[in-house]
Amino acid sequence: MMKKLLCGVDIGGTKCSIVLVNVEGQIIDKIHTCAHVDRNEEDLVKLVAENIKEIIKRNDFQESDLLGIGMGCAGHIRFRDGTIITTSNLKGFKNYPLRDAVQSYFKIPVVLDNDANAQAFGEFKFGAGKGFNDMVFLTISTGIGAGIIINKKLYRGVTGTAGEFGHTIVEPNSELTCTCGNRGCLMACACGMALPYLFEQKIKEGKKSKLNLPSNFNLSKLSGQHLKKGLEIDDPVSKEIILDSGYYVGLGIYNIFQTLNPPLIVLGGGLTNWGDFYLDKIKSTFYELARDMIFDPIEIVISNIGADAGVIGAAALTLE
Amino acid sequence: MMKKLLCGVDIGGTKCSIVLVNVEGQIIDKIHTCAHVDRNEEDLVKLVAENIKEIIKRNDFQESDLLGIGMGCAGHIRFRDGTIITTSNLKGFKNYPLRDAVQSYFKIPVVLDNDANAQAFGEFKFGAGKGFNDMVFLTISTGIGAGIIINKKLYRGVTGTAGEFGHTIVEPNSELTCTCGNRGCLMACACGMALPYLFEQKIKEGKKSKLNLPSNFNLSKLSGQHLKKGLEIDDPVSKEIILDSGYYVGLGIYNIFQTLNPPLIVLGGGLTNWGDFYLDKIKSTFYELARDMIFDPIEIVISNIGADAGVIGAAALTLE
Repeated sequence: MMKKLLCGVDIGGTKCSIVLVNVEGQIIDKIHTCAHVDRNEEDLVKLVAENIKEIIKRNDFQESDLLGIGMGCAGHIRFRDGTIITTSNLKGFKNYPLRDAVQSYFKIPVVLDNDANAQAFGEFKFGAGKGFNDMVFLTISTGIGAGIIINKKLYRGVTGTAGEFGHTIVEPNSELTCTCGNRGCLMACACGMALPYLFEQKIKEGKKSKLNLPSNFNLSKLSGQHLKKGLEIDDPVSKEIILDSGYYVGLGIYNIFQTLNPPLIVLGGGLTNWGDFYLDKIKSTFYELARDMIFDPIEIVISNIGADAGVIGAAALTLE
Repeated sequence: MMKKLLCGVDIGGTKCSIVLVNVEGQIIDKIHTCAHVDRNEEDLVKLVAENIKEIIKRNDFQESDLLGIGMGCAGHIRFRDGTIITTSNLKGFKNYPLRDAVQSYFKIPVVLDNDANAQAFGEFKFGAGKGFNDMVFLTISTGIGAGIIINKKLYRGVTGTAGEFGHTIVEPNSELTCTCGNRGCLMACACGMALPYLFEQKIKEGKKSKLNLPSNFNLSKLSGQHLKKGLEIDDPVSKEIILDSGYYVGLGIYNIFQTLNPPLIVLGGGLTNWGDFYLDKIKSTFYELARDMIFDPIEIVISNIGADAGVIGAAALTLE
């Protein structure tokens, strides 16, 4: 029988997803579990392996019907060794050979990569990147992750950490500090982690928000969804912050353009739900900076894989 | 007879160099001419072709002893078509098919690329990059150019303009404007074009320079060589500017590290003559920013090809 199924595993901080997809990237079945949180390494691996076996079995397939198992996890992954160097998603996992540990339960090949690389490859195989040889995928949510496709493969660099545009510095003297400890990384300025600070600053400047947050609201919980609501009710503070973020993402895309000159940039992640108001600012910033330096078309589009992009991308890794 | 010679052509703004090199990158003969300046397109091509034929003939070789002819030229080059899109080195050359024009004089293959790409490939083939699969070359002189080697080949992007790290923006609100028109590009902040402004600023701040520039000195002519002299006589203003530049180059290298995670970065160009005082600042800035995010060794070294790097690099393009 022809192998025509892929298994994807997305290990998030709160949710672990396991899917079976076909070679067109369509989901056949999925399992979500939160039981992985706070498990030690061995127990997490066991949980993942059991769920993979379960999803195969309950669909009346056998392991040999699968091309392989692809796993995506946030953090620094040393791709060639299949190890998690560090990840904020799994407490205490340091230099852990996750790929080989899961592999020990299976005969089909197991691959482990960074979640943004997985999404990038999913987008390339099944989404907006179909038909391109080269592209850059940028996910904008709490942080900013990215994956680079060159000549139909992920470009990972020597460790596997290439594509960390989120950590490139674009405002060295910024008040905004990233989780990495540096000031003015793109992700410190542009994405979810910046929203509470930016909101507070605007209020301090005397601007009035229509959001009507409760007086005891913990501002550190301010998310893209709050600002999405703000955008809907025409809240000037929310709109300003969205434009600020759009400016920095546009600048980041300009820097990617100068660096890699790709024909396609795909944007994913929660903040793209801000929609055209946001995308227009991103694009206008990019085109204002790039002006007469664009000699071949560059497309900037929103991911079209949707909510399961992470786990479908993980499955796609088996096709690389 | 085995083909074992390469011809390189470096078309600069004031000087055009033509070399014969062997496959180890050693120069057998070279011709320099300034006669190309202000020629029209047809006459420049004729001059280049005549000089190539001359250097072959006077060394008792024939065209068929050569693997090919590689040409490097500053500016935007559309590699796949072999056209100069724009270049400040040759007045009036716009969308000019230089490769095909030179090719019409020869049977062996002719290649045209950006001068920084040519230098990068020369460094990869014959210099500090030997033995690596991936590297980034950065040339720091009046401007900042770069070339990216991925999997033993130049990565050029869709047009051929990839690697323009010099145009990435690292200080959006900087007073320093690049020739591209944007504020705070890496090259506006870090290299030769920034020196007059930085010097003037330091003097305005009341700092005293020991350089003893003549009272009628045209500050726009202040070059890296002036500051090199300043460094030698312990001039505090020169040293501060060199450190400023080193900081931005270090930050630029950090951004390259996050973007491409290469095992090797090679620095060339005139400002590297500032020596260890400069290189130490570049490296210390990089390592302060990268801290615990380096998981595999990254080497940052100075080019070891020397003064003829441009034209040797152009010759190397024939080996790609």
